[in-house]
Amino acid sequence: MATLGLVEYGDASPEVRAVYDDIMAVRKTDWINNFWKALAHDPVTLRRTWESIKQIMAPGALDALTKEMIYVAVSVSNQCGYCIASHTAAARKAGMTDAQLGELMAVVGMANETNRLASGYQVEIDARFKT
Amino acid sequence: MATLGLVEYGDASPEVRAVYDDIMAVRKTDWINNFWKALAHDPVTLRRTWESIKQIMAPGALDALTKEMIYVAVSVSNQCGYCIASHTAAARKAGMTDAQLGELMAVVGMANETNRLASGYQVEIDARFKT
Amino acid sequence: MATLGLVEYGDASPEVRAVYDDIMAVRKTDWINNFWKALAHDPVTLRRTWESIKQIMAPGALDALTKEMIYVAVSVSNQCGYCIASHTAAARKAGMTDAQLGELMAVVGMANETNRLASGYQVEIDARFKT
Amino acid sequence: MATLGLVEYGDASPEVRAVYDDIMAVRKTDWINNFWKALAHDPVTLRRTWESIKQIMAPGALDALTKEMIYVAVSVSNQCGYCIASHTAAARKAGMTDAQLGELMAVVGMANETNRLASGYQVEIDARFKT
Amino acid sequence: MATLGLVEYGDASPEVRAVYDDIMAVRKTDWINNFWKALAHDPVTLRRTWESIKQIMAPGALDALTKEMIYVAVSVSNQCGYCIASHTAAARKAGMTDAQLGELMAVVGMANETNRLASGYQVEIDARFKT
Amino acid sequence: MATLGLVEYGDASPEVRAVYDDIMAVRKTDWINNFWKALAHDPVTLRRTWESIKQIMAPGALDALTKEMIYVAVSVSNQCGYCIASHTAAARKAGMTDAQLGELMAVVGMANETNRLASGYQVEIDARFKT
Repeated sequence: MATLGLVEYGDASPEVRAVYDDIMAVRKTDWINNFWKALAHDPVTLRRTWESIKQIMAPGALDALTKEMIYVAVSVSNQCGYCIASHTAAARKAGMTDAQLGELMAVVGMANETNRLASGYQVEIDARFKT
Repeated sequence: MATLGLVEYGDASPEVRAVYDDIMAVRKTDWINNFWKALAHDPVTLRRTWESIKQIMAPGALDALTKEMIYVAVSVSNQCGYCIASHTAAARKAGMTDAQLGELMAVVGMANETNRLASGYQVEIDARFKT
Repeated sequence: MATLGLVEYGDASPEVRAVYDDIMAVRKTDWINNFWKALAHDPVTLRRTWESIKQIMAPGALDALTKEMIYVAVSVSNQCGYCIASHTAAARKAGMTDAQLGELMAVVGMANETNRLASGYQVEIDARFKT
Repeated sequence: MATLGLVEYGDASPEVRAVYDDIMAVRKTDWINNFWKALAHDPVTLRRTWESIKQIMAPGALDALTKEMIYVAVSVSNQCGYCIASHTAAARKAGMTDAQLGELMAVVGMANETNRLASGYQVEIDARFKT
Repeated sequence: MATLGLVEYGDASPEVRAVYDDIMAVRKTDWINNFWKALAHDPVTLRRTWESIKQIMAPGALDALTKEMIYVAVSVSNQCGYCIASHTAAARKAGMTDAQLGELMAVVGMANETNRLASGYQVEIDARFKT
Repeated sequence: MATLGLVEYGDASPEVRAVYDDIMAVRKTDWINNFWKALAHDPVTLRRTWESIKQIMAPGALDALTKEMIYVAVSVSNQCGYCIASHTAAARKAGMTDAQLGELMAVVGMANETNRLASGYQVEIDARFKT
């Protein structure tokens, strides 16, 4: 169970409800996932985190699906079970196909492998990569 | 310096040269970066790693640039200096703009933050994410 | 279930019981948590680990609460579910308030984010930080 | 060298300079460290990151020194060379003594060890820690 | 539940069945563990991963038990619950005794501790280690 | 440079010298590497860390070379440059051949890859692995 429990909408302060409302509006959904309900015990962190995510995940130079797949790649590398579940769902909602999921996982796996081969063999950075 | 040193093309066995030649042909380049030269002391690993990367990084359901950005995202999360340098260069060669780099870094940073907020608050996975 | 099972007090050797007794005495508690019961299959590691923790976690230049919060910060960064649960409980027993928990999590999250922004942008260490 | 280079004060846009000025004012210093100069190529991320850090690191339920030591603990666990250097310097500026540094490192080291003993032995979370 | 579900033998394509058959033959077992069933949605990754593992884990300069213990060491350091469970079982099948398990865990724990003491104190690599 | 600098033998207190002497005697060497010289500012941590390593790394159910290779595997997974350099040197001194190094790296790389495939596909632990 979340350390401090979950703050449900009906029990939330107006300050927290305003964030919940904005999350649902931006994401075009009618529910709030546990991450936000757990953060809501600290309304300052709740608001800052949401405002940051809203800004960062909005389509820009990268589209929404690419951003969600990057989020999954990081979460998988870090072994964060909650984030893998929630962002895999988000990526699929954003249109990720099974074939794209498969390629995403293949790249993440390979990158984790060669990250260790490079450090394990103590490979020096090529001069060409430094300029 | 790499643990076992670097195998230069001129000193390479025919088996290693064949891999080097294929790397240069596939990547349309005329040089081999240190990672491969360090791996070349173990020709079996050299070949397997190259064949895997060639297969995984080829455009498919995801394009080459997206794959390189995912590679960077993983390398940054893992703090692999060599891989950050080499795959940032590869992503730029594949067309990544400064604006895309900025958004990539912003997503990677945010994902690393919320990965810890989720685990730190011991948030349970929502039932909806499990189906 | 723990790989080798848990050694309960009633089934423990005198050597293991002596460690259990010291844990309960130092921590002013009447139970042993699973971590120690799982380690008890290797009495040498059990004793060394307990003696190290007892020495390290004793109040000194840093007070007990600060040390427990640092322990939580590391455990969260490493995604160790067991350690997050046990050391969050220990920190709360040592007096951590909900407000302190919230600030601890905010710092941990932010540090994890900027750790990746710093490495992702390949930022060189400032000369002033090296002296 | 930082991927996109460093934006020096004299070359910065008014938007970036405003952030630099605020950093120097809040930190009561007359220079900007490389981290911010590397981020400045993306003024939106620069501002958001600074505003978040300013909010999070301000003394509150936890004092400034405790927050800096937590920052160091995370950076050490993540092997972020830049962040270890910069936040160790910040913690010392905030008053961390050599004795406190020594205890901080001892706790960080021990936590990293027991994080793996707990997961390695597949220890289940005690029921008492879940409530 | 695995993201895309598990592909059981009876429902598998001939391509997937061929890999399953080879896994059972090489491992001298009559069942397939969930890892492969989850990967089977992407037959290319399934085959490449299996061929790589078959090649890498075959006895060579290192024996099978040593390789399995190294696999466990990595999985524990990365906090991968699935891999800790499956490779601990594999190591025990390959002959790992309880005493060897205990020493393995002790080394893994210690290495994780000193990895952070080395980086936390910003220790420079000795010249003798570079040659 | 190490945060607090390095304590050379000639400048060390009798307490620190005693540890240095024991390190050189046990390792049958005539020099002290930087790790210990950096720790020596905190003699309590210096002694505890050395006594733990001496106990853990002594040949027992696992031989010295196997233990050193496990140490390298962990250090590579954690991207600890200092520890990779020092423990690769130690493993070679303990007899690790180039072929063994190659296989060690291959296993470490593969384990890091499948750790992420297992978590990325959210694979559930098989019932058989839990008993």
